[in-house]
Amino acid sequence: MNAREGTQYDALIVQEVAPRDGLQIEPTWVDTVDKIALIDALSTVGFTRIEAGSFVSPKAVPALRDGEAVFQGIRRHDGVIFVALVPNLKGAERALASGADELNLVMSASQTHNRANMRMSCEASLAAFGSIVALAKRSGVRLNATVATAFGCPFEGAIDEARVFAIVDAYREMGIEGVTLADTTGMANPRQVARMVRRALERLPAHALTLHFHNTRGLGLANVLAAYEAGARRFDAALGGLGGCPFAPGASGNICTEDLVNMCEQMGIPTGIDLPKLIALSRTLPALLGHDVPGQVAKAGRNCDLHPVPQAVSAS
Amino acid sequence: MNAREGTQYDALIVQEVAPRDGLQIEPTWVDTVDKIALIDALSTVGFTRIEAGSFVSPKAVPALRDGEAVFQGIRRHDGVIFVALVPNLKGAERALASGADELNLVMSASQTHNRANMRMSCEASLAAFGSIVALAKRSGVRLNATVATAFGCPFEGAIDEARVFAIVDAYREMGIEGVTLADTTGMANPRQVARMVRRALERLPAHALTLHFHNTRGLGLANVLAAYEAGARRFDAALGGLGGCPFAPGASGNICTEDLVNMCEQMGIPTGIDLPKLIALSRTLPALLGHDVPGQVAKAGRNCDLHPVPQAVSAS
Repeated sequence: MNAREGTQYDALIVQEVAPRDGLQIEPTWVDTVDKIALIDALSTVGFTRIEAGSFVSPKAVPALRDGEAVFQGIRRHDGVIFVALVPNLKGAERALASGADELNLVMSASQTHNRANMRMSCEASLAAFGSIVALAKRSGVRLNATVATAFGCPFEGAIDEARVFAIVDAYREMGIEGVTLADTTGMANPRQVARMVRRALERLPAHALTLHFHNTRGLGLANVLAAYEAGARRFDAALGGLGGCPFAPGASGNICTEDLVNMCEQMGIPTGIDLPKLIALSRTLPALLGHDVPGQVAKAGRNCDLHPVPQAVSAS
Repeated sequence: MNAREGTQYDALIVQEVAPRDGLQIEPTWVDTVDKIALIDALSTVGFTRIEAGSFVSPKAVPALRDGEAVFQGIRRHDGVIFVALVPNLKGAERALASGADELNLVMSASQTHNRANMRMSCEASLAAFGSIVALAKRSGVRLNATVATAFGCPFEGAIDEARVFAIVDAYREMGIEGVTLADTTGMANPRQVARMVRRALERLPAHALTLHFHNTRGLGLANVLAAYEAGARRFDAALGGLGGCPFAPGASGNICTEDLVNMCEQMGIPTGIDLPKLIALSRTLPALLGHDVPGQVAKAGRNCDLHPVPQAVSAS
């Protein structure tokens, strides 16, 4: 961190994605009322953006098959944008009918990953986005689009950066305002991240760029730091570090929201998020999901949560 | 990461500390032969420094009560320095008799933590170091000294940095060459780390400064990155991310060696360590210790460990 003391840091915007990228991989069904309760609770801790669900095939992602009921059941809050992930026109129509504030389209920079995930080529994905954008523009809903596997593909390995930025350019030419560069399976490193953020910011303003990191190889927060230093200001994160990668059993999922907010708070980077409330919420996850979650701060507490001095010492 | 493409990075020296800071907290006894086998294996993957054990009271740290047998049983390798942690003169005498190449003295910057850990005041600890230094100088063994809780104390909270650097100055005035700043319970943040590394490097050369981070709040590798950027070149890390903090049950321990080496490799920072061998070694830990370990790369594999394309896709 090269900033000198006294530097005022820009705010870092956290988009909470646990209800979508976290829950989608959970093997145990989470009831619709519990999803709604989680999102409603997240809406009160200071987030301005929550990815609340997806409208993908119920066969492909059964854990999120109740997208309509979730979006229709959550309480709306001024200043909180509820985002829906959509892979295709049908998903976009479902999301709009359910009252999503923003659509997040997604395709992979990797042909192989896109075929595995979307069952079509990258070119076909991109071509299909045209009708979604037209629909969104008519309805007035916001638009973001994600480049998945932007930092590496679990099938192909390294991804040509020119390919990533050609997709970013195509998104922007279509009139999509927001762009997310996603490290889908946790292959990014800080040097690469800094370079790619600089290239992205030559194309779009900082408020329109989101970085989506996974902690699969332990580099999540180091990558956030590198991206923030390079000028990025918007980041996805999941409560408890939920999420994961089908190719890395036991490895961590998304970067953990409370660990990120704790880092920011310790460094003096404003996030607007109430960390104690967030930690309390994260501590409800193991009971909800039936397993431990990867986040660290919910286990360790904040720095200011001091411990009693051992008896022998306090007596001496 | 502000380095531009084409930058040649300086090497990063990793001191492996799993045999000491990792094993000391393990509830299950690890047999002396298994400790020796672990250290012997670590000696062949490229480390130049291994903290192989400690000579503290067997009552205080029963898990490492076989320090003599371990140091006497390990194979020596040219170019590998075997370090022993010592809290007092008696420990130093035991370490020297056992053939340690370097003594690592330790005291806390926090009075309360030092009383809890060392059963004496900081002033008493420092005064007692005089006779250890004299003994070491007579014997020709190397000397390092650690400032524990340098970035925060679990009992006192924030630690006055002037206090930390007064201890560093005292170490140097005593003739102790190496100094470690230790984030004993994972309270450091990247901004603080960068500032403190800059202050430390006003006092001693980079090759004499070691940073010891724990991943208790998920910031371990982000702190390494900040320290490296500020000029630090030597870091402690533990295979598998072993270790821990008695005040944070379930939280991570030391930064994980293979996760650190993977980050360096991905960024082009030389470490001299054979990552595939290191990962293979880390994967033996759960069977040795009877529990899962926090490291991520041993679970997720390296970026280059690609996955087969799902059948439906490869057939299409």
